[in-house]
Amino acid sequence: MTCRWLVLSVALCGIAGPAHAADNPAQPAPTQPVVRLAELRIDPSQLELYRAALREEIEASIRLEPGVLTLYAVSVKGDPAQVRIFEVYADAAAYESHLQTSHFKKYKTGTRGMVKSLVLVETDPIVLGAKAK
Amino acid sequence: MTCRWLVLSVALCGIAGPAHAADNPAQPAPTQPVVRLAELRIDPSQLELYRAALREEIEASIRLEPGVLTLYAVSVKGDPAQVRIFEVYADAAAYESHLQTSHFKKYKTGTRGMVKSLVLVETDPIVLGAKAK
Repeated sequence: MTCRWLVLSVALCGIAGPAHAADNPAQPAPTQPVVRLAELRIDPSQLELYRAALREEIEASIRLEPGVLTLYAVSVKGDPAQVRIFEVYADAAAYESHLQTSHFKKYKTGTRGMVKSLVLVETDPIVLGAKAK
Repeated sequence: MTCRWLVLSVALCGIAGPAHAADNPAQPAPTQPVVRLAELRIDPSQLELYRAALREEIEASIRLEPGVLTLYAVSVKGDPAQVRIFEVYADAAAYESHLQTSHFKKYKTGTRGMVKSLVLVETDPIVLGAKAK
């Protein structure tokens, strides 16, 4: 594997509990993140091109978009054409905005002929735990 | 949804590239993270108990284990008995050590009768992107 760990992440510890917005109507409900899992199958003959396009898109999204919080892309061991992306956006507006960016559009258009199938699994967070090293 | 965003995460931007260990034999190869996706189906009648046990286990793992970097647990929207956990450990030793902790063993034993199926998908990272808010 060629992936290197450069900098490491910090506590994002959303231990679930009711928002209690009703207890204090003056306080707005906390922003609801959009958390999604994308399951893709890539044309094996174009896998390296696809991976390069994906890396470029993720790097730009994290660098340029305040509302794109996490994009963890992995391939299934032993079957690298199967790709999984764990995506966290700050809220629905951040996700909608992401779809309109030039880097996302470039990725989407550029990889159209490489992606054999795409399933988007919408999810509800139970607990999102991570920490600083 | 009851999950709340408490603290937010920071750059973990493993843009892949060769480790080049061979270029400099004196320098050890960078630590290789273990990245995995667990796919579970839970007994719907025990779902709340399961979620509580999972939250407790993740909270303890993140707090107590230096090598447990990320445990993102979500349920599939519209089918909450389907749970997905995106797991990142610093290396294989951190993962092995995690399996021996009392909180993991408590979770594993306590949820045995709740978990109807479990698939562990081993993966290779392509790029793991996240940032501070």
